[in-house]
Amino acid sequence: MAKQERSIRTRRKILEAAASVFEEHGYGAAKLSAVLERAEVTKGALYFHFTSKEELAYAVLDAQTEFPVRRVQRCRLQEFVDIGLLFAHRLSTDVLLRGSVRLTLDRGSGELDRSGPYRGWIELNHQVLKEAQEHGEVLPHVDVEETARIVVGGYAGINLMTQITGGLEDLEAMAGAFYRHVLPGVAAPGVLGTLDMAPDRGARLLAAGPERSTGGEPAPPG
Amino acid sequence: MAKQERSIRTRRKILEAAASVFEEHGYGAAKLSAVLERAEVTKGALYFHFTSKEELAYAVLDAQTEFPVRRVQRCRLQEFVDIGLLFAHRLSTDVLLRGSVRLTLDRGSGELDRSGPYRGWIELNHQVLKEAQEHGEVLPHVDVEETARIVVGGYAGINLMTQITGGLEDLEAMAGAFYRHVLPGVAAPGVLGTLDMAPDRGARLLAAGPERSTGGEPAPPG
Repeated sequence: MAKQERSIRTRRKILEAAASVFEEHGYGAAKLSAVLERAEVTKGALYFHFTSKEELAYAVLDAQTEFPVRRVQRCRLQEFVDIGLLFAHRLSTDVLLRGSVRLTLDRGSGELDRSGPYRGWIELNHQVLKEAQEHGEVLPHVDVEETARIVVGGYAGINLMTQITGGLEDLEAMAGAFYRHVLPGVAAPGVLGTLDMAPDRGARLLAAGPERSTGGEPAPPG
Repeated sequence: MAKQERSIRTRRKILEAAASVFEEHGYGAAKLSAVLERAEVTKGALYFHFTSKEELAYAVLDAQTEFPVRRVQRCRLQEFVDIGLLFAHRLSTDVLLRGSVRLTLDRGSGELDRSGPYRGWIELNHQVLKEAQEHGEVLPHVDVEETARIVVGGYAGINLMTQITGGLEDLEAMAGAFYRHVLPGVAAPGVLGTLDMAPDRGARLLAAGPERSTGGEPAPPG
């Protein structure tokens, strides 16, 4: 395989190994020697891609909002709900995502700035909610920027609580219940009844085919 | 002062010192030597009250749901909202509470069972919501046990996010916004408009006087 392709694969292998070490031990206790062992790469290869544990952690954190997260729907509020339901489903299969989430769900001690993913998710949710508002799908009094913050923070807590009290397998059910609790205060009456917030929605979306990245072209009018 | 009273004060001093060390460093990196230094007690005094860092952490975790958290209101949904708004306000002044919350908001690595406070908060919220249901304050389709879990998890995430992205000072505003988002899907139409979910509600409640502990007598009929 070509040199560049090999380099991309090695980088990915290191990132996934680091994510699994972060998931298990958290940032503070994670050791680069464990990453080397799991990735089965040399120290030289690791330092070629990442100069420190900190740089590795930021790359893992970035991965959380880099994967394609939007699936265009005629109804923007459905798209808003889909972001969280798809994420809950992905978490069960994607080790890089799990390691990234683990870093985000520790409060840490100031040694790592964990605010990036929160800001990224708030921005994305805010954008989709603004489109929903333009389409007349949102109740008149709703402050969509506030709603974006409440949903991102609340979702993170649902995730944290299921990890601490139950298992990750609860997340899809809990995420569905979370949206069913929040949407009555957000959605216009005619829209609320049309929303699919079932726990298996994420799995069905993923099975249905390709996605569109947030970095892509603007969504077509609904 | 009497021997017993002195012992209670020393225990409290150790707990507050431990809470501030946990708040700063998290559980894994916290050192008992730092607790000794902050509490200004001897090693012997500390080990008389707590045999290990783990035991100290569980005592700090327990403190979170031990303080009086209910204030009886004729409207039980107001009481439900008050639990969270009062907690947000207390967090700004109570170091023991802050250290306890810090322990709860780290996912940890299995070395400490952090599920106790979540279970305690869910039970309390569930109890108040059941009373609200009996009083006819809740929409017919609502599963109050699920609502209790969603609110406790979501609240924890709002707390975590404000600590990571902003400051603790945001929590009272964010907690009010969180309840304003969730209650339209929970409260019966006639009740929703009567609820006070303003950010300064917690401060007003605390200024208004004494509280009732969760361990006390059952609430009088509304």
